[in-house]
Amino acid sequence: MSETIPTISAFDWVPDFARGQVRDLVARWGLEEIGRPYRTHLIHAFEERGEDYVAWQPFDQVPAYRDETGEMFESGAILLHLGNTDERLLPADPATRMQAESWLFAALSSVEPALRPISLLPLFHAGKDWVGAAVAAQQPLAEKRLQRVADALGDKDWLAGQFSAADIVMAFVLRSFGGQMINDHPRLVAYLERALARPAFQRALQAQLDDFTAQPPLQS
Amino acid sequence: MSETIPTISAFDWVPDFARGQVRDLVARWGLEEIGRPYRTHLIHAFEERGEDYVAWQPFDQVPAYRDETGEMFESGAILLHLGNTDERLLPADPATRMQAESWLFAALSSVEPALRPISLLPLFHAGKDWVGAAVAAQQPLAEKRLQRVADALGDKDWLAGQFSAADIVMAFVLRSFGGQMINDHPRLVAYLERALARPAFQRALQAQLDDFTAQPPLQS
Repeated sequence: MSETIPTISAFDWVPDFARGQVRDLVARWGLEEIGRPYRTHLIHAFEERGEDYVAWQPFDQVPAYRDETGEMFESGAILLHLGNTDERLLPADPATRMQAESWLFAALSSVEPALRPISLLPLFHAGKDWVGAAVAAQQPLAEKRLQRVADALGDKDWLAGQFSAADIVMAFVLRSFGGQMINDHPRLVAYLERALARPAFQRALQAQLDDFTAQPPLQS
Repeated sequence: MSETIPTISAFDWVPDFARGQVRDLVARWGLEEIGRPYRTHLIHAFEERGEDYVAWQPFDQVPAYRDETGEMFESGAILLHLGNTDERLLPADPATRMQAESWLFAALSSVEPALRPISLLPLFHAGKDWVGAAVAAQQPLAEKRLQRVADALGDKDWLAGQFSAADIVMAFVLRSFGGQMINDHPRLVAYLERALARPAFQRALQAQLDDFTAQPPLQS
């Protein structure tokens, strides 16, 4: 019955700047929150994966997930699946759950895409003359979205009132893509600190780092 | 017991280019697929909404959703909520449901953000000299994601094998943000035609158009 332990995919090596940032961290964090052991299926970040892997993860990314029920991909969907049977990730109270589901999507659909170009364009297109203007054009939307999240959070500890999958994803997004912009919002700074102080996050982070066991790829 | 009929928010007027593209279309489509009547709460697109609305929809956008159970926002979350109690939106078979959940997130998190800059930057930053280079830099990722979706769809009619909420969102994303790029992928063209031919989509589209009953805002 080995399939009763879920398997997630992750990379066996990434460059330093990406360590602790790869998205299997979200799935690991969710599994750690509910105390569910898991295995990792490690793949190489800089090699094409084969058809078998793409059948599991159609975008050839990580994480993919498999358990006794079936297979899936997308970190938000994996948290949803885990939360369907565990109220520590999706609250049992139906109205609270609706809020958690809303924020789970909001983090990925309304917040991440607003922040992402600001942190990633300068990284992936370094030195290109159009990047500064493109980032500046994105800034007002990103600022507005962060303000909206801070306002909605208000004095609450967590987005849906109690901790949920939505906080895992929102904290991941703020941590990976929020950069210095977060610092204009004391409520978001405190929220992020609160989330990252959770033992489940710390275990998930360490587990991702521990899996980078391979040698760097040969330079071509 | 008026709350047994769900309410969604929508705009009472938008410019021609946005008609039939506003995201309440996704919620309407889901409601139409399961034959659930709904009311609309119409708001003005070009006026700040008040605190009451922002408490319902934290990003001051549409759609927001309310039913006898609670309140929510984010079109993907609304479909998920409707699908939790109706297998026409989320398949009853657990493994198939995992695929539908994966694709629901994939459409919003992996496909839309790759396509969106290509269609929206030239619209919202028309005439700016950096836009051409920014769009060109985005093109390879967008092409790759579309190819991955086409490959994963293969000969299937729908992403999870049977029609689901994932197809509503993916069809919305391809229709609104795919532009001419779709035409390189005959499978995606056929998929989109299949989705948009559904009577539920046609009713949802007409209902959005019929709600644009207000006069255009005064030019300032």
